[in-house]
Amino acid sequence: MTSPLKLGVAGLGTVGAGVVSLLRANADLITARAGRPIEVVAVSARDRGRDRGVSLDGLAWHDDPVELATAPGLDAVVEVMGGSEGPARALVEASLAAGRPVVTANKALLATHGVALARLVEKTGATLAYEAAVAGGIPAIKALREGLAANRITRVAGILNGTCNYILTEMRVKGLPFATVLKTAQELGYAEADPGFDIDGVDAAHKLAILAALAFGRPVDLDALHIEGIRHVSALDIALAGELGYRIKLLGIASQEKGGVTARVHPCMVPEASPLAAVEGVFNAVLAEGDAVGRVVLQGRGAGAGPTASAVVADIIDLARGRTAPLWGAASETLDASPALPMAAHRGAYYLRLMVLDQPGVIADVTAVLRDARISLESMLQRGRAPGEAVPVVLVTHECEEAQMSQALTRLAGLPTVVEPPAMIRIEAL
Amino acid sequence: MTSPLKLGVAGLGTVGAGVVSLLRANADLITARAGRPIEVVAVSARDRGRDRGVSLDGLAWHDDPVELATAPGLDAVVEVMGGSEGPARALVEASLAAGRPVVTANKALLATHGVALARLVEKTGATLAYEAAVAGGIPAIKALREGLAANRITRVAGILNGTCNYILTEMRVKGLPFATVLKTAQELGYAEADPGFDIDGVDAAHKLAILAALAFGRPVDLDALHIEGIRHVSALDIALAGELGYRIKLLGIASQEKGGVTARVHPCMVPEASPLAAVEGVFNAVLAEGDAVGRVVLQGRGAGAGPTASAVVADIIDLARGRTAPLWGAASETLDASPALPMAAHRGAYYLRLMVLDQPGVIADVTAVLRDARISLESMLQRGRAPGEAVPVVLVTHECEEAQMSQALTRLAGLPTVVEPPAMIRIEAL
Repeated sequence: MTSPLKLGVAGLGTVGAGVVSLLRANADLITARAGRPIEVVAVSARDRGRDRGVSLDGLAWHDDPVELATAPGLDAVVEVMGGSEGPARALVEASLAAGRPVVTANKALLATHGVALARLVEKTGATLAYEAAVAGGIPAIKALREGLAANRITRVAGILNGTCNYILTEMRVKGLPFATVLKTAQELGYAEADPGFDIDGVDAAHKLAILAALAFGRPVDLDALHIEGIRHVSALDIALAGELGYRIKLLGIASQEKGGVTARVHPCMVPEASPLAAVEGVFNAVLAEGDAVGRVVLQGRGAGAGPTASAVVADIIDLARGRTAPLWGAASETLDASPALPMAAHRGAYYLRLMVLDQPGVIADVTAVLRDARISLESMLQRGRAPGEAVPVVLVTHECEEAQMSQALTRLAGLPTVVEPPAMIRIEAL
Repeated sequence: MTSPLKLGVAGLGTVGAGVVSLLRANADLITARAGRPIEVVAVSARDRGRDRGVSLDGLAWHDDPVELATAPGLDAVVEVMGGSEGPARALVEASLAAGRPVVTANKALLATHGVALARLVEKTGATLAYEAAVAGGIPAIKALREGLAANRITRVAGILNGTCNYILTEMRVKGLPFATVLKTAQELGYAEADPGFDIDGVDAAHKLAILAALAFGRPVDLDALHIEGIRHVSALDIALAGELGYRIKLLGIASQEKGGVTARVHPCMVPEASPLAAVEGVFNAVLAEGDAVGRVVLQGRGAGAGPTASAVVADIIDLARGRTAPLWGAASETLDASPALPMAAHRGAYYLRLMVLDQPGVIADVTAVLRDARISLESMLQRGRAPGEAVPVVLVTHECEEAQMSQALTRLAGLPTVVEPPAMIRIEAL
């Protein structure tokens, strides 16, 4: 047996404790698969006294995580503190600068500093592995970067946030409003007390930026991403989507278009027969389309101690075996520099739901707005009758440009007979 | 730029020509991802004159593929001839013996000679890569062997044969009998003129043996596999499955049980909400359950020039990057030797469909047989009324042992009022 791979683990929250536990629980097979034993020898966390369900006996304790970058006797560092700045960033940069490999689950760090990190690892030759940063236990990074490496990827998409997918699933199955389901999700621990990072789409955007960088060989500027969350998705729209044969999912989608790359996170209607429609609850999915392989879809648990630790330890086993890849799949000098396209240039079909006064002439006004914006209708559905009161009108459009739709939405919202801001959800034939 | 990786390709059928085409079409990004150019410099095939849609100008031609094992100037060999014996086996063994790495799509070879090949690569240190052997373009080998390497896998299952899945899908969607759909599949090139290898489950069994070897660290003896094909699946059973909320799929399933490993290929009824139920047509899927990650499902195209070449070239890029893994995920000395369990020990629920004479007392006879075999019923469904003629009776059982079911089937087939051999399909809650 060769010498063990010695690790320092920074962060002992759910994920960090999960990594330590998994390395111990499956030590026999991990040793066999890694070709050598893997040992945690040092740790760093905020509170030394807290019971985390794992024994820290015999492990060196560092109050300052950045010490793990250069502490003697370590072969690699596991960074599971999180955050794009502060000690996580300092530790990762210091480790890589010292030539020490890092395994991280830190999506914000990768999404925010992807270009600089690629240059750093190329300079020092140290590996930065981040399978756990996207879609938890699903080996999506490995699939895209290695498994589909022969392909020109044309599109990558996914259900990348389990909190949002849980909320949308519960809203659909139980017919409940967003706020009620969010509250339950918080009680169950599926949503944070401050849920904005998840439900406003920021977390999914970080993950999409990473997938897009891998798919298109080009770190995507987070500022160029169009990001919408799920706060405005109503139980009524979910029910109407079902009647039309769709399910509403928060998707991250990046695609290679003629003039550049588009990357966007927003609620979508996907056909019920789509492989993404069947991915429910806290599960995640990643879809990739390549010129040789066609469409590949991976699904599994996107969060939680076990799935995330599974991904972190897979990276550690790769390190032990000497399996590495360039941070974004290819040397940064070869990375494409095609520009990010604005959301206004997006083309697609749209679902619109208006609350209108049930009176003669309303439909004529609405359809005139769409005609003026050169948007053609695929179908229209008026529900219920309540003369003089508000009733929903659903419009499904043929493909048009986002810029046309924005213009139409502004005018529709201004019609005197439209009594609520229009609901708009993009339709994706994924 | 470092020196190119020089390849000899043995076999220029659909897959071989696809590999040569893909390496040329995506040479720019493959070079960037591999870190060096990849060049086919020698080929071997049966007929030198045949037009394969790819230029062979400038390539060395070998009439005998085994020459590629030692021909000078090659860094690796791509074996895409197929077959567990003959020139394919001779080439792979000679290459590995000479220390020359091999990339293959040969499932029969891996499934039949897995243990001997593992010993050979350990002796010589040469890599044998086989991503394309299972599920075409889906990076299932990489996912199991590397992506989920931290997990104790408890079960692996999949839709592993696109021909069967196409036939079952068409039968369901169009309500057509097996023979009619098979004929169409043959005309479309989805089934061979001699379709037995696919429709009798042999091809799926080879792939399952490979997945099981990876999942449980233990090559599975093909003779220990229970193999049933889809010839006996009727359009009536497919329709009745739909009424019960199931779809019929040919699955390969291997699982770790208390006393050993079970591995079996047979038609299954899976719940319509199962991620496997939605995998239709020529698509394949691989499902794995690990103790840390939970359930992961991968789906994509399981055959064809593009998807298979995608997997072969991914292996070539791994070779160029120096990424390797032990053949079955761990050194063969560490491989588990838990025994294969017989099918008689399988436990599960069953669907039975009997054609019985519509006369008093029949149901009492049938249920008495089940009672005597200690099999309890979950539900029973009698369709149609035609006094004195044959009508279908459907029985869904609770979980019981295969041995009990076999005993009951023999007795049911012998009842004078049961006018056709009973149809039995196992139910899998996957």
